Amino acid sequence: MGIAIDRLQEHLHGTRLLGSIQSTLYFDQNTLMPAAGSAWRGEQLALIARQLHGRQSSPAYAELVEQAAAELAAEPRGEDPGDWERNLSLLRQDLRRQRSQDPALVGALVEAQSRGYGLWQEARSRADFSLFAPALEEMIRLRQEQARQLAVGERADGGLERSCWETLAQPFEPGISKARLETLFTPLQEQLPPLIERTLQRGLPQQVPTGKSVHLPEPVQQKLCQELLESWGFDGRIAALARSPHPFSCTLGPSDFRLTTRIVPGSPYSAFLATAHEWGHSLYEQGLPRRADQWFAWPLGDATSMGVHESQSLFWECRVARSQAFARHWHPRFCSALGGADPWGSASTLWRALNPLRPGLNRVEADELTYCLHILLRYELEVSLLEEGLPVAELPRRWNQLMEELLGLIPANDAEGCLQDVHWSEGLFGYFPSYALGHLISAQLGEAMEAELGPLEARIAAGEDQELLGWLRRHVHPLGRSVDGGSLVEQVSGRPLEAAPFLAYLEAKVDRLMAT
Amino acid sequence: MGIAIDRLQEHLHGTRLLGSIQSTLYFDQNTLMPAAGSAWRGEQLALIARQLHGRQSSPAYAELVEQAAAELAAEPRGEDPGDWERNLSLLRQDLRRQRSQDPALVGALVEAQSRGYGLWQEARSRADFSLFAPALEEMIRLRQEQARQLAVGERADGGLERSCWETLAQPFEPGISKARLETLFTPLQEQLPPLIERTLQRGLPQQVPTGKSVHLPEPVQQKLCQELLESWGFDGRIAALARSPHPFSCTLGPSDFRLTTRIVPGSPYSAFLATAHEWGHSLYEQGLPRRADQWFAWPLGDATSMGVHESQSLFWECRVARSQAFARHWHPRFCSALGGADPWGSASTLWRALNPLRPGLNRVEADELTYCLHILLRYELEVSLLEEGLPVAELPRRWNQLMEELLGLIPANDAEGCLQDVHWSEGLFGYFPSYALGHLISAQLGEAMEAELGPLEARIAAGEDQELLGWLRRHVHPLGRSVDGGSLVEQVSGRPLEAAPFLAYLEAKVDRLMAT
Repeated sequence: MGIAIDRLQEHLHGTRLLGSIQSTLYFDQNTLMPAAGSAWRGEQLALIARQLHGRQSSPAYAELVEQAAAELAAEPRGEDPGDWERNLSLLRQDLRRQRSQDPALVGALVEAQSRGYGLWQEARSRADFSLFAPALEEMIRLRQEQARQLAVGERADGGLERSCWETLAQPFEPGISKARLETLFTPLQEQLPPLIERTLQRGLPQQVPTGKSVHLPEPVQQKLCQELLESWGFDGRIAALARSPHPFSCTLGPSDFRLTTRIVPGSPYSAFLATAHEWGHSLYEQGLPRRADQWFAWPLGDATSMGVHESQSLFWECRVARSQAFARHWHPRFCSALGGADPWGSASTLWRALNPLRPGLNRVEADELTYCLHILLRYELEVSLLEEGLPVAELPRRWNQLMEELLGLIPANDAEGCLQDVHWSEGLFGYFPSYALGHLISAQLGEAMEAELGPLEARIAAGEDQELLGWLRRHVHPLGRSVDGGSLVEQVSGRPLEAAPFLAYLEAKVDRLMAT
Repeated sequence: MGIAIDRLQEHLHGTRLLGSIQSTLYFDQNTLMPAAGSAWRGEQLALIARQLHGRQSSPAYAELVEQAAAELAAEPRGEDPGDWERNLSLLRQDLRRQRSQDPALVGALVEAQSRGYGLWQEARSRADFSLFAPALEEMIRLRQEQARQLAVGERADGGLERSCWETLAQPFEPGISKARLETLFTPLQEQLPPLIERTLQRGLPQQVPTGKSVHLPEPVQQKLCQELLESWGFDGRIAALARSPHPFSCTLGPSDFRLTTRIVPGSPYSAFLATAHEWGHSLYEQGLPRRADQWFAWPLGDATSMGVHESQSLFWECRVARSQAFARHWHPRFCSALGGADPWGSASTLWRALNPLRPGLNRVEADELTYCLHILLRYELEVSLLEEGLPVAELPRRWNQLMEELLGLIPANDAEGCLQDVHWSEGLFGYFPSYALGHLISAQLGEAMEAELGPLEARIAAGEDQELLGWLRRHVHPLGRSVDGGSLVEQVSGRPLEAAPFLAYLEAKVDRLMAT
């Protein structure tokens, strides 16, 4: 490799080290750190964020990128020089974003995130939105300022004009626009509520024949989670499972994958499904080309978008762990974990229990039928807060109003309502739609997978979960950031993303659940 | 405050942030990190270590220290200007150490520590010393080089001539020398083996009347640890308990105290006593003056030596949790944790079970009578390895030979022998004697405490554990680094440290255990 490329690679390696230190601090904050540690942790994170920002925006780094680009232009390398062009183009794009932000703002944001997280925890535990409201106001102000600074950078570079929300959503979903989301979300908004209505009217078969809800003690849930992970290739040498208030997964090093879960009283399948979900994220990370030497530290080794990331977690949670064939396989294991008791009576009942198809207040606990409506609600509120001047004090009322309109439910308090998610406490605006996009992408990729492997249910029934992973390992994971989320779907499925495959899948699933 | 002092304080604050990031990475490495993460973690730690070394040795920092010193000389401040002089003097001493080390060596050491830790884990789990030997050789080489560099710095500054081992021990035990250790350790070496011999000859009363060993299931042990911590003021808002292969405690922020424990199969009291021990460390950290604004980020806010630190953990483990009065208090709680079963039959039997007074192979599990012999063995081996050319390959043989000489036991394999401790894997040479010093200091401080509060047993019998903490909070913890370990003992107990109080305490305890 040329000299500039070598130096650039070394620089990116250092940046990744710092980034993974930041992730380790976040991981600890969300798993073991006592609450009183949050102020100091905020200072630590701000220190690392300033260093990262410095590395990613310094004139010396910008010059290094240009030198490397010139070197590559003079002497193309690799089997596909287009890969190198794409790497450089992504680095320039990231650089532009970084350089358009005031370092003071970057530091202020990190401190506000840490403070906000602490206050959100407090507010949620006391179900008192007013404790969190000032932090949220401050966060919105800081994010609006950030969007302004980023937009100035975009314009100076001849980029697209984007709204505040769109600007903030770019890191999660490159290229996303409100117009594109309208195209994708309108069918959901139009077709999901009547589908839910029809489902409720038809009346679901009773979930547990005894009429009592199933109690899975904590050690039983832990055992089942562990068994699930092992059956899906969990390897304790490169991965670890911990507890956190909100389940998540993260990558702390090229061979260090973490996931967390939580036990939810009264929701016996929550930890199991969350484990399936987070492990799906982790499998994607584990399959990214960054693990090979070639693209380590380079953008091409990264995940391409949160929507694609979410499609991977949802695939394992919904397409696999909530499938009928899976319930058939796991019914004996659930009974065995309970010491031989069988509160379900049949695999079909367990399957129905894993697919309640009933509107609830909680996004993370929501089923496939209602999940996207939780996202539409949040998306609308984010745009209102960031772009339309919705006062923060109005958020709980507006949340509850939308919840009633979309799902026919009203939260008893703000802990069940607008305080349920961690995202806004850390200023993650623009992130939620990726969850819904994940459902759509998962369905469309699922169709492509079935075209090659035959019906998923048959594969799962045959215990061939690893075949499904193999397909993802061949077609999806290795793409890294070589294509954006939209192009990935087009490349793998042969057509642009649309809502139809997801809606068709849901209709069919509801029919089968009703027929069982 | 003057301008230079302000800037110096800000600098020290940043250094402490970085140091606590380093500690967080270590904490995670020892609790949740999967084994394959160690290479990357090593790189992260090396990055932080380089930054720390840079901050602590840069010419700009050295100049800032001198400017602040000049400012203070011109205008003394505070109620006791001596405090500021001491702060500056400690900063200069630390600076001299830092500046005499080659940054490349600092980085190499951190990487070797991380690699060594991984290999040690592997070697220990397979009881195969040869897997770890090359890493230990490399570590010894690096530490010898470090000692050479530090000694050059000392000499240039007119400091004392110190041997390699002495130089490496300074950060743990400021001012320590092999001559001083000989004075303190010779009485142990002379009097402990015959005391053990006499004890074994007299024959200990049977530990458990049923003749069966007591089984405390894992959840029972966890419950007892939790109860112990709560009764000693554990506050989940500022502290957290985790698991690690080797118990430890650490401070990750001014309000963030962590401790770990482990469940040892076949050693039902191990986790309980380790929890008492680590919480004693944490109580010292929590009582240091750094938590007040005044000395935060300044040396005076720090612990003064590992020996003093260890005296605090040993005080709670041995003087309190292994006392007869404590067993009387806790016997009902142990029974209650077992659901009402009483495998001991009496509090005296529980007390004897907590004080086995029987030579064993494991340092961490050792009782008060044999513990210091484990240290004498390690101290002798360290000096042999670092200063007398003992080949690393000879270590297991030499270890086993000394173990037989001192304790009459031979390890069945190296996992039970020279691979049992984490210290050498991270190159912590010079650390072990602090553990024995801790026993001596704890005994001598205990005498001073009894002079003021009356017999400790009476206080513990009255459930006044908090009175003991109060005494430590008044006399020991607030001293921070204002005095070194030796001066602390002299200041609090009225005379220099000696072995006699510890040996007298042991004789008396053995007599009481025999009489019970």
